[in-house]
Amino acid sequence: MQSFELDREDLSRIKVALEEGDDVLREVLRDYHASEIAILFEKLPSEAHERIINILPTDIASEVISEMHEESHPGELLINLDPEKRSEIVSELEYDDATDIIAQLDEEEQENILESMDEEDASSIRALLSYAEHTAGGLMNSSLIKVNISQDKKGALDDIIRQSEEMEEFYTIYVVNGDDVLQGVVSIKDIIKAHADVKVQDLLKPDPVYVKADVDQEEVARLISQYNLTTIPVVDDEMKLLGRITVDDIIDVMEEESTEDILKISGVSEDEELSGSWQDAVKSRLPWLVINLGTAYLAASVIRHFDSTVKQLPLLAAYMTIIAGMGGNSATQALAVTVRRISLSDLTDRQAYSTVFKEFLVGLINGSVNGLVVLCVALFYDANPMLGLVLFLAMTGNLMIAGITGATIPLVLKRVGIDPAVASSIIITTFTDCAGFLLPLWLASKFLL
Amino acid sequence: MQSFELDREDLSRIKVALEEGDDVLREVLRDYHASEIAILFEKLPSEAHERIINILPTDIASEVISEMHEESHPGELLINLDPEKRSEIVSELEYDDATDIIAQLDEEEQENILESMDEEDASSIRALLSYAEHTAGGLMNSSLIKVNISQDKKGALDDIIRQSEEMEEFYTIYVVNGDDVLQGVVSIKDIIKAHADVKVQDLLKPDPVYVKADVDQEEVARLISQYNLTTIPVVDDEMKLLGRITVDDIIDVMEEESTEDILKISGVSEDEELSGSWQDAVKSRLPWLVINLGTAYLAASVIRHFDSTVKQLPLLAAYMTIIAGMGGNSATQALAVTVRRISLSDLTDRQAYSTVFKEFLVGLINGSVNGLVVLCVALFYDANPMLGLVLFLAMTGNLMIAGITGATIPLVLKRVGIDPAVASSIIITTFTDCAGFLLPLWLASKFLL
Repeated sequence: MQSFELDREDLSRIKVALEEGDDVLREVLRDYHASEIAILFEKLPSEAHERIINILPTDIASEVISEMHEESHPGELLINLDPEKRSEIVSELEYDDATDIIAQLDEEEQENILESMDEEDASSIRALLSYAEHTAGGLMNSSLIKVNISQDKKGALDDIIRQSEEMEEFYTIYVVNGDDVLQGVVSIKDIIKAHADVKVQDLLKPDPVYVKADVDQEEVARLISQYNLTTIPVVDDEMKLLGRITVDDIIDVMEEESTEDILKISGVSEDEELSGSWQDAVKSRLPWLVINLGTAYLAASVIRHFDSTVKQLPLLAAYMTIIAGMGGNSATQALAVTVRRISLSDLTDRQAYSTVFKEFLVGLINGSVNGLVVLCVALFYDANPMLGLVLFLAMTGNLMIAGITGATIPLVLKRVGIDPAVASSIIITTFTDCAGFLLPLWLASKFLL
Repeated sequence: MQSFELDREDLSRIKVALEEGDDVLREVLRDYHASEIAILFEKLPSEAHERIINILPTDIASEVISEMHEESHPGELLINLDPEKRSEIVSELEYDDATDIIAQLDEEEQENILESMDEEDASSIRALLSYAEHTAGGLMNSSLIKVNISQDKKGALDDIIRQSEEMEEFYTIYVVNGDDVLQGVVSIKDIIKAHADVKVQDLLKPDPVYVKADVDQEEVARLISQYNLTTIPVVDDEMKLLGRITVDDIIDVMEEESTEDILKISGVSEDEELSGSWQDAVKSRLPWLVINLGTAYLAASVIRHFDSTVKQLPLLAAYMTIIAGMGGNSATQALAVTVRRISLSDLTDRQAYSTVFKEFLVGLINGSVNGLVVLCVALFYDANPMLGLVLFLAMTGNLMIAGITGATIPLVLKRVGIDPAVASSIIITTFTDCAGFLLPLWLASKFLL
């Protein structure tokens, strides 16, 4: 199989079917997986969303809604549905998905939907709505399978089957005591295999990896990745079981965080949608460019300070751009490695120092190698050994500065609690531009003129 | 809980315990999860690895080995173990983990280990060794739970329990026909709940999402993310079931791919280890910098061509660096958004055209806004309206070029089968540097002098 790519053929097939009667449409939709229909929705008007949702079987309809992109407004779609259809669909949704969708609506609309649901579902969703969006609590699903530690085999199996009625799949069976405090996990196979008189207690795997509800989603992703987990239980301060987070929710988090890293490091606001409009793109990027314009004037003021030097030796104007550009690129390299490293795990003080030292060393070496090339060109092409020496020193110096700033700035930002990826190349290259212009011009004014 | 960060305290605790007898060491190790011990190994000498593995219970030892970073050489550790201990550990390993470790050894060592294993395990691992590393076949695990479609409830349950003996956890029960051809999946809860005379056939969920063995791992990650899967079955060309890939293996793939994207886009070779040595960093980055030095000379040659223009109006040297720098940053923004977008899904022709058009438009707008700022500065600070006009045109033009190249180059590379992230900012900024120098200098030579 191939991952689904929306192409014009699919789209026009659906559009034609929308013109025809419900039977044709139903038949055509049968060829698509719920997540594919959700992708198709991005290119269809909201009237078509409503029509398709009304025609689909409830379980598929609720899956489509849970897979819909936030920008296609699944919440508004729900609001516009016939109340009966809506409450059928909402009760089929997993609690965490229902919460994400309802959270997008205004309070009145939220109440509207919650009141039409059965009480138990509504109170579960109300509880989930109270957690901040990017925390474990905001990610978790409160429906899970749990058994009491004192149950015997038959009681446990009955409990599991009863609880799993409402869930599509389950991966982990949590064990709690009478106060709902998490004790560990138990495997379904061990329960099935066990003798009738065995208690859950005897099959318990204690000390599970868990997470508190207020932990940031990035930390949850790290735990899941580090301990190779499929689900992670979420507990409150008394270790009472609140819910569980499954790895498929974390995959979305990881994609989101990686995209944010790449965008921020390149001077794009983290909330720019990759497939957003040009208006959004301008809004997201223009502020960074204006900041950069300010810093570019700063760097350019260095050049204006050496106006007479440039006038006397105009080829310095060409060479200084080479030194500055090379510094910018070296800094970007050091920055990318450091930001990604911080993103995947926190660094100890010692690791932080050794990172900066490593980048300084790499800058020194890469700087001297490239400096030698520039020296040779000045020697053989410009026949100016002194110019060659000036350029060698400037190149080496600037690439050292590039390495140190490229590593230090994100590390310092992380320590003071600012996202290190904000140390985008736009910020870092200000340093290398200033130094890249200053070093050759100043050295030239000293030794050449 | 918090994700585990190796700190000096843990390390010195282990080091002290290593000096003491086995009992103390065993006691201290009890406080660490297998994946934490694997992280500790990165800072311990290989003699310590061997000693710790020998002291740990076999199940923990094999988990530590499967979690060890490739750079800590788990394969060599295995080779150095006492043969009996080794075969115990290897038989505890999941097939896919065992294969990854054994694949790092030379052929003679591989044979050595495979011959000491029991026949069935060895032949499973031999089969896995034959798949390319970054494909579905290279990722999959051949141990899975499958039942025949014609089984009844009791037969199916017995099969499941027998097969699950060797596995820690399972998530999906695959259904095959007599020829081992994948028919669908069935849920354990449905089997448990079923009446004794129900057949697997009656409980079957048909049409599962599957993947062929030679599919690239990035595509596997996309499928798993798109269809929210926990496992995906791997089949051969006749749809025979070969193995399954679980989502926790895909998480590692996704982290790897995102890191590669960030590094490549910043001009760092994809195989630079984030925590590698300075020698590795120099090897990975110097080639890109030397390429960049070449392109920087190209851009600088534009400036040398206008030596007399610069001599007459040295402040152009300052302004042109602003125009070029702004172009470079705009191009990096367009590049990051486009590369990440391609990375997450393929674009249709139409989407590709509209991406380029969007970036052109964004460049035009951001260019004119920043151009207006530069125009005002030239007007009020330099009191030179004609210079202002030249700079306005140059800025707008260069940011348009930046948008177009930042989007077009990765899209074209993707079409011709080259990784789009190779269109690193280093390559893209060559265009914006050349245009950034050429536009103001040429316009100035026409209209100002």
